[in-house]
Amino acid sequence: MLADVYPVFLSLHSTEVGRQITIEDVMGVPERDAFPHILKYVNRQGFFRNAPLMQDATEFVRKLNDSYKLFIVSAATEFPLSLAEKQAWLQEHFSFISWKQMVFCGSKEIIRADIMIDDHFKNLDIFPGKTYLFTQPHNQLANPGKHTRVNNWKEIGEYLLA
Amino acid sequence: MLADVYPVFLSLHSTEVGRQITIEDVMGVPERDAFPHILKYVNRQGFFRNAPLMQDATEFVRKLNDSYKLFIVSAATEFPLSLAEKQAWLQEHFSFISWKQMVFCGSKEIIRADIMIDDHFKNLDIFPGKTYLFTQPHNQLANPGKHTRVNNWKEIGEYLLA
Repeated sequence: MLADVYPVFLSLHSTEVGRQITIEDVMGVPERDAFPHILKYVNRQGFFRNAPLMQDATEFVRKLNDSYKLFIVSAATEFPLSLAEKQAWLQEHFSFISWKQMVFCGSKEIIRADIMIDDHFKNLDIFPGKTYLFTQPHNQLANPGKHTRVNNWKEIGEYLLA
Repeated sequence: MLADVYPVFLSLHSTEVGRQITIEDVMGVPERDAFPHILKYVNRQGFFRNAPLMQDATEFVRKLNDSYKLFIVSAATEFPLSLAEKQAWLQEHFSFISWKQMVFCGSKEIIRADIMIDDHFKNLDIFPGKTYLFTQPHNQLANPGKHTRVNNWKEIGEYLLA
């Protein structure tokens, strides 16, 4: 939820299939169903390096970093190109995050922490601590269940920086 | 302890300073003191990609992988070039390890697991589970304390595959 990838997916999809779709069309649809060529997009050089920032991400990650022991845990090993690109992207947009706070993994089940913020149930469901489901189109229609839904970084701030 | 980096460090050091040193000379010496130019070596393209395998590593990692839920956790984000090189190296020598089992991080304090095998006290000391100290010249003279010392992969097998 640091990068705002949906606008990019929508744009790449339009180019790829020659037909415009909107955020509403992919609401509640798993990413790989919504964008059948998604693996092609994310394996493309520059995809992660040039990803747009999620609104308010830098401001609130900075504030969280001042109050918590923060780690950025990114699913990355599935896409080998993404490793270096994601690290360079983090260094550009979150220069206050050191290499000691970065984790690039495949499965997040190995993560030990007290709080996890993520947009995927598969990561949150197996995490033993407090969990926040960050709204993204693919999870927008789902019942958050035991997780607390947050719709944007401001709402995370209301929960964790109050 | 998958890669056997000391022979490479000794060779690069000899070239760099124009004087031969041996394993005995660096016994009990922290790596950055033993090899003052170590950051130059590990930041060099190809260092991790071409690292030699530790003896018996492939055989015992394969056996452990058959009996345990195994993760390879590698301190890598300090050296951005190493990310892609380490992943390619793992794919070459440990092709049975999937991307889901790989973790590239800075600090290992975020790792949740039952058992950790590592050559650095800084990683083992803060780990809440069972810990094995893998002998490397830099830790060879130290008292392992609460950790169980293992001198090679065969000894790991004796403890964990008995």
